Amino acid sequence: MPDETVQLDALVAAHDLHAIDRWLDDHDAIEIADELIRLAEAERAIVFRLLAKDRALAVFDAFDPAYQEQLITALADDSVHELFLGIDADDRARLLDEVPALVAKRLLNALPPYARRNTNILLGYPEESAGRMMSPRYVSVRTGFSAADALAKIRMAGLRPREVLIVIITDNERQLVGVVDLPDLVTADPDTIVTELMRSETYAVRVDDDQEVGARFMLEADLVALPVVDTENRLVGVLTVDDAMEILEQEETEDIHRTGGVEPLNRPYIDATVLQLARKRALWLLVLIGAAAMTVNVLSVFEDTLAQMVSLALFIPLLIGTGGNSGSQAATVVIRSMAVGEVRFSDLPRILRREFMVGVLLGLMLGTVALPIVAVFFGIQFAFVISSTLLVICTWASFSGGLLPMVAQRIGIDPTVISAPMISTLVDASGLVIYFVIARTLLQL
Amino acid sequence: MPDETVQLDALVAAHDLHAIDRWLDDHDAIEIADELIRLAEAERAIVFRLLAKDRALAVFDAFDPAYQEQLITALADDSVHELFLGIDADDRARLLDEVPALVAKRLLNALPPYARRNTNILLGYPEESAGRMMSPRYVSVRTGFSAADALAKIRMAGLRPREVLIVIITDNERQLVGVVDLPDLVTADPDTIVTELMRSETYAVRVDDDQEVGARFMLEADLVALPVVDTENRLVGVLTVDDAMEILEQEETEDIHRTGGVEPLNRPYIDATVLQLARKRALWLLVLIGAAAMTVNVLSVFEDTLAQMVSLALFIPLLIGTGGNSGSQAATVVIRSMAVGEVRFSDLPRILRREFMVGVLLGLMLGTVALPIVAVFFGIQFAFVISSTLLVICTWASFSGGLLPMVAQRIGIDPTVISAPMISTLVDASGLVIYFVIARTLLQL
Repeated sequence: MPDETVQLDALVAAHDLHAIDRWLDDHDAIEIADELIRLAEAERAIVFRLLAKDRALAVFDAFDPAYQEQLITALADDSVHELFLGIDADDRARLLDEVPALVAKRLLNALPPYARRNTNILLGYPEESAGRMMSPRYVSVRTGFSAADALAKIRMAGLRPREVLIVIITDNERQLVGVVDLPDLVTADPDTIVTELMRSETYAVRVDDDQEVGARFMLEADLVALPVVDTENRLVGVLTVDDAMEILEQEETEDIHRTGGVEPLNRPYIDATVLQLARKRALWLLVLIGAAAMTVNVLSVFEDTLAQMVSLALFIPLLIGTGGNSGSQAATVVIRSMAVGEVRFSDLPRILRREFMVGVLLGLMLGTVALPIVAVFFGIQFAFVISSTLLVICTWASFSGGLLPMVAQRIGIDPTVISAPMISTLVDASGLVIYFVIARTLLQL
Repeated sequence: MPDETVQLDALVAAHDLHAIDRWLDDHDAIEIADELIRLAEAERAIVFRLLAKDRALAVFDAFDPAYQEQLITALADDSVHELFLGIDADDRARLLDEVPALVAKRLLNALPPYARRNTNILLGYPEESAGRMMSPRYVSVRTGFSAADALAKIRMAGLRPREVLIVIITDNERQLVGVVDLPDLVTADPDTIVTELMRSETYAVRVDDDQEVGARFMLEADLVALPVVDTENRLVGVLTVDDAMEILEQEETEDIHRTGGVEPLNRPYIDATVLQLARKRALWLLVLIGAAAMTVNVLSVFEDTLAQMVSLALFIPLLIGTGGNSGSQAATVVIRSMAVGEVRFSDLPRILRREFMVGVLLGLMLGTVALPIVAVFFGIQFAFVISSTLLVICTWASFSGGLLPMVAQRIGIDPTVISAPMISTLVDASGLVIYFVIARTLLQL
C-alpha cells in the first residue's frame, strides 16, 4: 500500500542520488509510479533511469498512457524500444494514439515483426472498441483435445499469466465453441476431452462492440477473460479482466465528468494544463449561459410584477436553486441506473410515475417546513406563495430529471450530458414562470 | 448479450407456461436474471421455480443482494437452503445483512458446519471491510513445496475456479511470504520450488482495511487475486477480482449519488420504493434549502438597491447559475481525481493555483461574450457590471470548487458530499454579494 511518510520529491530536490536509490529499493513498482508522477517531467526521466531494467518495465506498465507518452518522449533513446516492447499489445496500441505521429512510426518500426503485427491488428479497430482493448494473444484448442493437450499448449505458448486464465475451444473454421477456465483444466483428469470441461454458458463480445459493453458484461457474469469474435463468430482475441477494470474506471470518470458539466479530460487531472482544463469546461459553460439567457427573458416579462413587489426577488435564488437540486437528484439516480443497465426505455412510464410522486413528497415536505418560517417574516399570504411554488417546482424538477436522460438516450444522445448543471439551468427558467404565475394569482398582482 | 426482442413479462402476463419454459431455455443466466427483476415479486418466484437446479443457482448468483433477499423470502422452502449454500461465502455474508434476523438465523442453521464456519468468519468483520468481501477459501503452500506439490494441492482442494487463480506461500507461522500465479505454476518445470515462481512484488491488504482500498489496489496493480492478512501478517483469505469489480462499481455508484446530492440508495433504483427514494433525497434538500436561506438574507440587505433598479433582478438567476456551474465543474474534476488517488492534500496549493487560473480564463471568456449582447439591450454601463461579475464569480466559484472537497477530506468528511448542488448553493449567496457590490460601485447606486 502507498507509503506517505517518505517523499521522493524531497530527495530529488536535495539531489541526493544515494538516498533516491535507497528509496527506490524500499518501494514497489506501484508506489514508485505514484511518486514519479509528482515530479517534473525532466526529473521523472532522470529518476526512471536509476531503475533496474525489469523494475523500470513494471513502473512503466503502471503509468497512465499520458505519462508513458511523456517518458517515451523524454528518454528518446534505445531503452524506449525495450519498454515499448515490454508492455501488452493493447497498451502499445493506446500509447501509439498518444505520441506524435513521427514517434509512433519510429516505435512501431523498432518492434520485432510478431509484436508489430499484433499491434497493427489492434490499431485496425476503432478507438474505444473491444478490439482495440483486447489481447490478440490467447491459447485456443480444437474440440477433440484433451485437458493434457490443452495444458501442453499453454506451456508452449509462452504467454503472460493473464493471457492464459482461459483456454478457448474453436472448431475447424476457427469459430468459437466454448471456454474452459484454467483451474478446471488443472483439476480435471488429464484425459478428459476439453468440451466436457466447458463452462455451461459461452459468452463472447464482438470486436467492434463498445469496450464498455464487454467490460460491463464481464462484471455482471464474473468473468476473468472474455473471447472477442468477429462478425462470423471467429475468434480474434481475448478481453482480460485487468483491461475490463481499467475500461470501467475510465468510463466512470467520463460519466462523472459529463455529469458535472465537463467534457472528459482523457488524461489525469493533475497532469492537464490550465488551458486544457479550461477548454474542457468552456463549451458547456457557454451552452449553459446561453440557456440561462432564457431566465433573463422570463424575468423581463414579469418586470412589472417585480417592480410592484420587490420582495418577490428575494426568493428567486432559493426557489430556482431548490428546483435545480431536486432535478439534479432525480437525474443523478436515473442516469446511474441507466449506466449500470438496470433501466431501459420501456421503464419510462414507471420512472416518470415514481419521480412525480417523489417530487410531490419532497415538495410537500419543503413547503411545510418553509410555511411557518416565511409567514413569520413576510406574512401568511407570501408564505403560501413560497410553499406552493416549492411544491410545484420540486415535482416538476424531479419529473424532468427522470424524463430528460431517458429521452436523450432514446434519440441517441449520451444521457450523461444531462448534467446537474444542465438540469438546473433548464429548470431555472420554467421555475421562474411557475413562481410568478403562482405569485400573481395568490397575491392578485 | 441481452436480447431485447422477446419480452419475458409479456409471456408471464399471458400465463403461457410453455412459452416461458421455451424462453428460459433460449436465454442464458445473465439474461434471465435481467428479465426476472422486471417481474412482480410473486411472478418472479414462480418463474424462478421453472428453472432446473443448476441454472437456478446461476441466475440466483447473478442477482443483486436486494433481489436475492426478496427471492429467499418469497420461496420460503427447502430449495432456499440449497441456493444459499450454492453461492460464495462472501455473498452469503452480504445476503445475511439484508434478510430479517429470523430468516438469517434459519438460513445459517441450515448450512453444513464448514459453510457455516466460513460464513461466520466473514460476519465477524465490519461491513464494507476487505474481510467481509474476501473468500475464506484459498490454496496455500509452505516455502519448500514444488510446483507439482502445489498443483496437487489445488486438485485436492475442491475450490471454485476463481478461488485458485493464485496460490499463496506462507511460512510455518502462516505468515504471508509470496504469491504464485496459477499460470506460472502450470508452465513451470514440476520440480521447481514455489518460491522461485513468486511474483517479484508481494502485495496484500489488511482484513480491516476498507474494501475499496483493496479493490482499487487490484485495479492499479493488475491483479486477479489479492491475499488478505490480519494485523500479524497472517493469511486469512483472498480478495478475488470479481469481488473487486463489484466493490468498485458499488463505490462509484455511491460517489455518483452523493455528488448529485443523494444519499446512496444501496439497492437498485428500479427496486426502491417511492418512500425510500424520497428519504434518500430529503435530508440533502433540507440542508441545501437551509443554506439557500442565506441568499434571502443577502438580497434583503440589498433590497433598496433592487428597488432603485429592478432590472438588476433580471440577471440574478443567470449570474448565480453560472457561478454554480463553474464551481460544480471544478469540484467534479477535483473530487474524481481524489477518488482515483491521483491527488493528495499536499497538492492543494497547486490545485488552487490552477483552479484560480482556469476560473479567470473562463470568466474572461464569458465576460467577453456577454459584454456586447448585454450592451445592446441594457446599455454599456450595465453590460460592464454583468461582465465584471461573471469574471469575479467564475474565478471565485472555480477556486471554491477546488478548495472545498480537499478541505472536507482533510477534516475527515467524504469529499463527495461536496456535491454539485452543495457547491451551487454555497456559491449562490457569495455570488449575490459580489454582484451587488460591483453593481453599486459601477452604477453609483
